[in-house]
Amino acid sequence: MVVSESELIDRYFRELGAARADVVLGIGDDAALLRVPADADLVLTTDALVEGVHFLPGAPARSLGHRALAVNLSDIAAMGASPSWALLALNLPEADERWLQPFAAGFGDLARAHGVALVGGNVSRGPLSITVQLAGLSPRGEALRRDGARRGEALYVSGSVGDAAAGLKRLRGQLRATPEAGAYLQQRFEYPVPRLQLGAGLRGLASACIDVSDGLYVDAQRLLLASGCGASIELERLPVSWALRETFGESAWQQALAGGEDYELCFSAPEANAAAITALAERTGIAVSRIGRIEGGTGVELRLNNTVMQFSPLGFDHFRL
Amino acid sequence: MVVSESELIDRYFRELGAARADVVLGIGDDAALLRVPADADLVLTTDALVEGVHFLPGAPARSLGHRALAVNLSDIAAMGASPSWALLALNLPEADERWLQPFAAGFGDLARAHGVALVGGNVSRGPLSITVQLAGLSPRGEALRRDGARRGEALYVSGSVGDAAAGLKRLRGQLRATPEAGAYLQQRFEYPVPRLQLGAGLRGLASACIDVSDGLYVDAQRLLLASGCGASIELERLPVSWALRETFGESAWQQALAGGEDYELCFSAPEANAAAITALAERTGIAVSRIGRIEGGTGVELRLNNTVMQFSPLGFDHFRL
Repeated sequence: MVVSESELIDRYFRELGAARADVVLGIGDDAALLRVPADADLVLTTDALVEGVHFLPGAPARSLGHRALAVNLSDIAAMGASPSWALLALNLPEADERWLQPFAAGFGDLARAHGVALVGGNVSRGPLSITVQLAGLSPRGEALRRDGARRGEALYVSGSVGDAAAGLKRLRGQLRATPEAGAYLQQRFEYPVPRLQLGAGLRGLASACIDVSDGLYVDAQRLLLASGCGASIELERLPVSWALRETFGESAWQQALAGGEDYELCFSAPEANAAAITALAERTGIAVSRIGRIEGGTGVELRLNNTVMQFSPLGFDHFRL
Repeated sequence: MVVSESELIDRYFRELGAARADVVLGIGDDAALLRVPADADLVLTTDALVEGVHFLPGAPARSLGHRALAVNLSDIAAMGASPSWALLALNLPEADERWLQPFAAGFGDLARAHGVALVGGNVSRGPLSITVQLAGLSPRGEALRRDGARRGEALYVSGSVGDAAAGLKRLRGQLRATPEAGAYLQQRFEYPVPRLQLGAGLRGLASACIDVSDGLYVDAQRLLLASGCGASIELERLPVSWALRETFGESAWQQALAGGEDYELCFSAPEANAAAITALAERTGIAVSRIGRIEGGTGVELRLNNTVMQFSPLGFDHFRL
């Protein structure tokens, strides 16, 4: 069967996602044309999933469509912005329609849920990899950044951490878990939920924000480094899911600190905003845990029941050679 | 040697390209923050280069850096827009600094030449592929599209066509050419020149425009299909370089019609704009050839010295399976 790139794009990707009035011209020309409101900043990010690096060979296509968009949505969430337009560059070993259909469904469902229009695409033959570029909008000058944390503020993380990495371990056959806990952890890896409502609500409340893609320990330090601060974290406060606790027992906090791919938000905020943050968590239905304090100096001090703990910070890096 | 993704990005990609006052926040946060002027439309495109599909294994890294950006710049040129911000997603089999340095130089030199800032990046381990997303700006409502050609207008193409595909054939050892002609054709493949000044100048003059990535015959038909027109092309008017003529002789026109990867602009314009287009070509130093006429109906009629010619349209498609 001969399937051309433009036929594939027509069949699976044209008009995927939300319909938006600000799309002047979508897929089908040399480039897309979009209208940006005068009072907005444009937010741009890109992230890729590569077979054998970010997912296992044979991973479900629906999960890949979801995750490829979710990891980019999470970057937009961490900026406190609203996602708007996506571009998709897909390298495929073959034009397998049984793969393309669920992939497009996974991508499209998440895109529609967050009001994102797919406005451009490129499909090439090649080893499977998926690169998404996502544009978003933020009220001018109000986007969240990594560099605003200040000594004395509180440090927070959303949802629970460590689940997705444990789910990946299970998919690799490297983790023993009950069927229920295993299914929960896998699902956290395969279908991460970007925290867009939380991120947007944190504008004006949080002083700095980052998404947890490479593990809380690593990503919190990125926020601290950008802000020129240190922090103390109380390990008993880390949000650990029932499945992680059941599976890892006493060492769950280590998994929670090190595991990546959760796409939760880690952020700092002044003490004065604590009540507003609690209210935001209730309003959005997204749990928020206060896990520590921004300190002077550098680095992170870990305490478990008031005992300082040592921890070796080996987060997941996509290019460690 | 352990090189992390963030170290690679710091060393090679931070502040690559032009410095722009409209970059509020570049590489180093979850996403970039950009200012779009109130009277502009945003133009977004993405294109990828995959090893073994768009370039040969062992291709010079400097050429890949140049081409990865050039093919996207060409899309922006075809919209008549000005390029502004790029994102780069790089899948690399290993962190080879002897490859990264010339790659970044090829990308960076072209970016600076066209005022483009690199504002985001992602580096993953994986089979070599390079995906660029490029944003540009166009005065609101004035961007060029593919769908504006009308019967009776003239059809043009810039520069010369067929060279790059011939250059690729030579790189593959499939083409006999003199050293001078061979070097010229290879250079046309490895360092295509995006026609940005021409594209911007064509706003208000051209009625439709497309860039020639898959071959003039294929891309002209895309423009015609979008516009609901046909065309006649006089083959003796096709712009053929000395190197192509020397190498292909009588069949140069076939190579010129079929060969892709030239990144010239093909466009239509009313007769009344002919003199202004000639003046634009002189001002920009980019040759423009009038090659035919927009007709009613569909499809392209090819004539060589007033004889209708047959031609089999097999352009380069990145996903023919």
